Amino acid sequence: MRTIRWSEAAGGRIHILDQTRLPLEVSELEIATHQELIDAIKILAIRGAPALGVAGALGVALIARNADRAGWDQSLRQSAIEELRSARPTAVNLAWGVDQVRPLLENGAQVVLAAALELADADAAANHAMGRIGADFLSELLPNRSLRLLTHCNTGALATTEWGTALGVVRELHERGQVTEVFADETRPLLQGSRLTAWELSMAKIPYRILPDGAAASALFGGLIDAVLIGADRIASNGDSANKIGSLAVAVAAKEAGVPFFVVAPESTVDRSLSDGSGIEIEFRSDSEVTHFAGIAVAPLGSRTYNPAFDVTPARYITAVITDKKVYRVSEGESL
Amino acid sequence: MRTIRWSEAAGGRIHILDQTRLPLEVSELEIATHQELIDAIKILAIRGAPALGVAGALGVALIARNADRAGWDQSLRQSAIEELRSARPTAVNLAWGVDQVRPLLENGAQVVLAAALELADADAAANHAMGRIGADFLSELLPNRSLRLLTHCNTGALATTEWGTALGVVRELHERGQVTEVFADETRPLLQGSRLTAWELSMAKIPYRILPDGAAASALFGGLIDAVLIGADRIASNGDSANKIGSLAVAVAAKEAGVPFFVVAPESTVDRSLSDGSGIEIEFRSDSEVTHFAGIAVAPLGSRTYNPAFDVTPARYITAVITDKKVYRVSEGESL
Repeated sequence: MRTIRWSEAAGGRIHILDQTRLPLEVSELEIATHQELIDAIKILAIRGAPALGVAGALGVALIARNADRAGWDQSLRQSAIEELRSARPTAVNLAWGVDQVRPLLENGAQVVLAAALELADADAAANHAMGRIGADFLSELLPNRSLRLLTHCNTGALATTEWGTALGVVRELHERGQVTEVFADETRPLLQGSRLTAWELSMAKIPYRILPDGAAASALFGGLIDAVLIGADRIASNGDSANKIGSLAVAVAAKEAGVPFFVVAPESTVDRSLSDGSGIEIEFRSDSEVTHFAGIAVAPLGSRTYNPAFDVTPARYITAVITDKKVYRVSEGESL
Repeated sequence: MRTIRWSEAAGGRIHILDQTRLPLEVSELEIATHQELIDAIKILAIRGAPALGVAGALGVALIARNADRAGWDQSLRQSAIEELRSARPTAVNLAWGVDQVRPLLENGAQVVLAAALELADADAAANHAMGRIGADFLSELLPNRSLRLLTHCNTGALATTEWGTALGVVRELHERGQVTEVFADETRPLLQGSRLTAWELSMAKIPYRILPDGAAASALFGGLIDAVLIGADRIASNGDSANKIGSLAVAVAAKEAGVPFFVVAPESTVDRSLSDGSGIEIEFRSDSEVTHFAGIAVAPLGSRTYNPAFDVTPARYITAVITDKKVYRVSEGESL
């Protein structure tokens, strides 16, 4: 199963596994225009930094097709690309995916599509590489035992083309027989942990428990966790890492509890134009994500919220950043 | 409004504001038997350590009435009291409330009831005292400014007889014109923050925002919070404090961010039989609190959870414990 794929149906379509419907329903969205793609990105039907990178590249291919078909002029095509590029601000990968294939536009829509599909395959390969590098590193650091791992949000196949980043390391460790149990933070407000990560873990037959985000510190201080593995949406040169809201609290608690904390992401998530995390733009989302649940109000009408989609974990709380290339020991001062 | 009250309707009833229905509906449960009271406690129709203390005392009064009326023997009466006393294990106040009035049973049901009602009045008075002591202390520590305060779970009138513990300090500061805004953690899994605290704050016209529990660290590190105020369900002599799950993560993040962290609770919450928090029994609750929401599954069927109702914050993360008697500076080594 791929989270996002291209088909030649009806002159070119992007197919997206609709993550707003999981785990109750497994269904695909068929995307015909860049506006539909932007909508799907904004409602988080597709999310996860690496998957957004592929969505950006395939989106440019879709725009190129539609521009050819409808005879758009240069400026119409460029504004469609810009709109897609900025659909979500924090994850660097969306803009990165757009920028990877955009220079090929002058070579025609078919060349753009070929490059986007190559990028999707490269993402899948990068995930498997991260899995191996991360599993090797954890086996060395915590030798001769089966591990109890904690993770936050969803960093699995659903967040990437396939396999996963942090969850890819978990999958690899599981295949090596080295996973006792995964503690999956439910990840409020949108419950990517209980809806998506738990679903992936159950499919892969990896033992897991779901916990409220606030219970992670209790599990860490209680000696129930050997290591924490999370993903990232943007990583600065010094290792400061933006990831789903709630990651910072887990990182701080892990450090205090003496549990190693790892960020797993492809090199495309590293933004070397930033020396540290202070320059990372944080997306704020709507009040209703917090005040309502499945359409039911859970707070007084008109309540305001503080609802950032991401937080930035300073490098001093991160034992190491694991990419598809290598392990960066950022807490020891190694930069990316 | 009182969270819990006695009436002579139909020969003696306990009336409880049903907190499972807030904020959508304000309605009372009329409790005629100790079994009904235990059920109400278990489903959290009434919760909060001080309110449970009053429930324990009034519960013994109800048992005394019903024992007289139905001619229960001594052992039936005692087993009813024991069952009530252990309905929830972590909050010391429930057992404390039972124990306060139990020795009066030989003096008759009317004497027990009078003592229970006195205990309820004393709780209300203790709340107002805590509010004043806490507000004085915070005004001294953070002088000449209006404060941005973060709180977790519900520690207001709904958790007590009236006014509140940590939220009582917030109310007192608000009356003095010293509150800019309250950040209320939603408090998963049962959302006491968004359902109850936000409702109380909106009624009191105190500006507030609701945030996912995982976003508290982001607010603390982002410089949006001047102080954290939470309640407690049991406090050991050294200051280690059991409180709603998620409190520990906030405490650790507050310390790292340099924000003072206060626990506010009546003296009846202090368990001086415990030298530290390691002896506090933690209640675990059902998987469905995490896997379902308003009856809707949000996780794969059969998912297991890690769902402790409380965690224990070590004294080293607590700037001070504020009771109705005094301020204990536990992080400086002062014991209770």
